[in-house]
Amino acid sequence: MKSNIYKIRLKKCSRLMKEEGFEALLLAKPANMFYLTGDGRLCSFAMITKDGTVALGVPKTDIEDVKGLAEFDHIAGFDDEVGMIHSIAHYFKDLDIKNGTVGLEYTFLTQSMMGMLTHPHAKPEKISVKDCTHIMSELRMVKDNEEIKLIKGAAAAADAGMKAAVESLRPGITESNVASEAEYAMRESGAEGFWRTYVSSGPRTNIAHGIPTNRKIKTGDPVMIDIHPVVDGYSADICRTVCTGKPAKEMQKAYDLYLKAQQETIKKVRSGAHMGDLETSLHTVLRDAGHGEHIFGPPIHGVGIEFEEAPLPPGHAFFHGEKEAGPLQTNVVLAVGNCGLYLGKFGVRIEDTVVVKEKGQEVLTGYPRYLES
Amino acid sequence: MKSNIYKIRLKKCSRLMKEEGFEALLLAKPANMFYLTGDGRLCSFAMITKDGTVALGVPKTDIEDVKGLAEFDHIAGFDDEVGMIHSIAHYFKDLDIKNGTVGLEYTFLTQSMMGMLTHPHAKPEKISVKDCTHIMSELRMVKDNEEIKLIKGAAAAADAGMKAAVESLRPGITESNVASEAEYAMRESGAEGFWRTYVSSGPRTNIAHGIPTNRKIKTGDPVMIDIHPVVDGYSADICRTVCTGKPAKEMQKAYDLYLKAQQETIKKVRSGAHMGDLETSLHTVLRDAGHGEHIFGPPIHGVGIEFEEAPLPPGHAFFHGEKEAGPLQTNVVLAVGNCGLYLGKFGVRIEDTVVVKEKGQEVLTGYPRYLES
Repeated sequence: MKSNIYKIRLKKCSRLMKEEGFEALLLAKPANMFYLTGDGRLCSFAMITKDGTVALGVPKTDIEDVKGLAEFDHIAGFDDEVGMIHSIAHYFKDLDIKNGTVGLEYTFLTQSMMGMLTHPHAKPEKISVKDCTHIMSELRMVKDNEEIKLIKGAAAAADAGMKAAVESLRPGITESNVASEAEYAMRESGAEGFWRTYVSSGPRTNIAHGIPTNRKIKTGDPVMIDIHPVVDGYSADICRTVCTGKPAKEMQKAYDLYLKAQQETIKKVRSGAHMGDLETSLHTVLRDAGHGEHIFGPPIHGVGIEFEEAPLPPGHAFFHGEKEAGPLQTNVVLAVGNCGLYLGKFGVRIEDTVVVKEKGQEVLTGYPRYLES
Repeated sequence: MKSNIYKIRLKKCSRLMKEEGFEALLLAKPANMFYLTGDGRLCSFAMITKDGTVALGVPKTDIEDVKGLAEFDHIAGFDDEVGMIHSIAHYFKDLDIKNGTVGLEYTFLTQSMMGMLTHPHAKPEKISVKDCTHIMSELRMVKDNEEIKLIKGAAAAADAGMKAAVESLRPGITESNVASEAEYAMRESGAEGFWRTYVSSGPRTNIAHGIPTNRKIKTGDPVMIDIHPVVDGYSADICRTVCTGKPAKEMQKAYDLYLKAQQETIKKVRSGAHMGDLETSLHTVLRDAGHGEHIFGPPIHGVGIEFEEAPLPPGHAFFHGEKEAGPLQTNVVLAVGNCGLYLGKFGVRIEDTVVVKEKGQEVLTGYPRYLES
């Protein structure tokens, strides 16, 4: 019997499917399957009909494990890719889905995965497919109170990871070793995993995605640390920029400006606010100081099962297969400060995980914000 | 000026492109861009013409960093998704590519990334697109001696990670904490990163992709540890299954059988051997012992820039957009033992990174193979 939480989610999902004319969703993205069933894993699929029936296909090795974690109506194990294709065909037949539109995750499926899910031996000829990314985003965007609790747990692990990373900073340590300290501490604090860790230093703080290298940190280097633990299936997002030793004046000035832009924007987060306006708020502080050309990427994005998910600001949303989000609702969770300020010789970024409240916001990641340690 | 190694790679790439009628490749997969230019990063692209011209598009923040790492003819920085689309259009025009076929990575691009790269504002109308996964695989499959040296470095980090993980095993430690130990040790040993760490224990060793959880390990539990460090851009792949305490007889029997299957197959690795025959070799030992139904996934796959890449056994290759690989050549690197043996209550898997030699093979990962610690 399905527990209440998945019943509620499936009911909402059914409503959206009917509104948009989907007969079923054929999901393969672990985050989406986890949201609707309680389990999401690699090399698996979930067929969700418009009446809320859940049919799973998983590696045959995993059936018992999935039974202990997921809520579903049907489960099938497969041996290999051919078996997966046959299970999909089998469900289309058994669930009597012969025509109409089935939703696929266009922002997740590669061309070749798409080829498997829509293989002529899997999908009936008369079924057409369409992107369903926005349906899953709409469902996942507003968190329930249990989800907020889980994200708070992830935020605590994020703070612990940041503390360990910042405290490890000393001349001679490599970016990769700083990442180690963060990752180890996040797992010690209850994380079962984490998304990609970013640690960049010196001139590398100017790049958009600072994946750690074996570069040794020098005195006076800024170090940008961006981490994303996963605790009980939910994520948090924190970024700090810290200088090893005395920061140059120019660096301190950039830091203070960015912190001001981020903090002023956080204060504007509340139910009814618009993503586009929050983006403008953060950008305006930077632009007014002459740094309009020194920003990159969406300044704000959603956080939940994934550390970066809907909502996105309007322009970015479009290119990532998302619909423009309406006014923010209570219990949407955001990361504020993602765009950074990149001045060529160095960059600064400060980012925090924030819950939208009826009359304001709650900042979940609390590690202190300072440049000079 | 392009250094010799990239000249050689681009020359081979040009030859393959001309043979298959590609005007250019439009790459976005970091591993492929890294192979042909010396740098591969997120949110970037590389256009490679059939004459070997390399045109890069990267976040504007990253230009100086890329200049220090990559070999190329043209570079453009962009602000956002619209800017990326315009850079692609600009290159099509400047490089005078008006019609013909352009290669895209169908095994990497999501539907929505595909939409951006082939956006009417990016791609000229008369250009058609086709998968080029197999071209990049053919180029990357046989390693040069420098690459073998780098993979040996990664194998050493894999051994160090495995040692730390196995030595941490004790009742009460969580799977996630065992993963910590492996990850920390890999970074200490020079890894700048790692692919997803798998640690599963007890009944969870029966699942195909054992992502760590906070499950506490108990006395007598088997623990499966599968790790993949990246050192200087190259990966290795090692898996061990170790029992905490005295293993049950059934577990020891399964372990001994799997080790036999893996070791006998490793001995058959040599220049001229076929992936399909190696797969059959490993499967036959397990099948002859009555375990034909207890295996999952390709038993052997390539290792290089990615921990799992071409070649794959024929059936799997087909579904992953790869061509069936010909007879193995000297300096192909394989992971042997990926399929595992899953008996319901537990699973065992032992996997090593192996280089194909003219008259045999060299096993690069050396951490001892034993069940009882």
